[in-house]
Amino acid sequence: MYIAQITVTYKPSILDPQGEVIKDALGRLDYQGVTSVTQGKYFEIKLTATDEQSAYDEATSLTEALLINPNTETYRITMLAEVEA
Amino acid sequence: MYIAQITVTYKPSILDPQGEVIKDALGRLDYQGVTSVTQGKYFEIKLTATDEQSAYDEATSLTEALLINPNTETYRITMLAEVEA
Repeated sequence: MYIAQITVTYKPSILDPQGEVIKDALGRLDYQGVTSVTQGKYFEIKLTATDEQSAYDEATSLTEALLINPNTETYRITMLAEVEA
Repeated sequence: MYIAQITVTYKPSILDPQGEVIKDALGRLDYQGVTSVTQGKYFEIKLTATDEQSAYDEATSLTEALLINPNTETYRITMLAEVEA
């Protein structure tokens, strides 16, 4: 069993209005040290696979098939091998 | 300059309907190896601080003040020291 931790964020060229709203709100709450905020999506997917490489390939395939908008979003995948309980 | 990578997910006791919807959709797309899907939010926050510990404390404080619903959500923070360009 493997766990894919998938982080999806906007491409750098794409405006992130939600991030701007959060940054302004943090400024009003006196968090003056904050210089930029990016908001994205996070997925944690448990999947069975013969080995880590095939688990990674499956996670990449399903991410590109369903979880991202390839025009505006980019992603990062981290694989963890789940220790059987 | 530091970067806080903040991952927010539902507490285990809370139903994750969005995760269930994604899991069903992946099943219909023939990704049979997927056993569970969790969806959450991801934030990347750049902030200035005197040292890594105070950057971490600020990130924790602003997460609990604005970014999560403490009743239903839990979070994880990873700190990165940004190399000055």
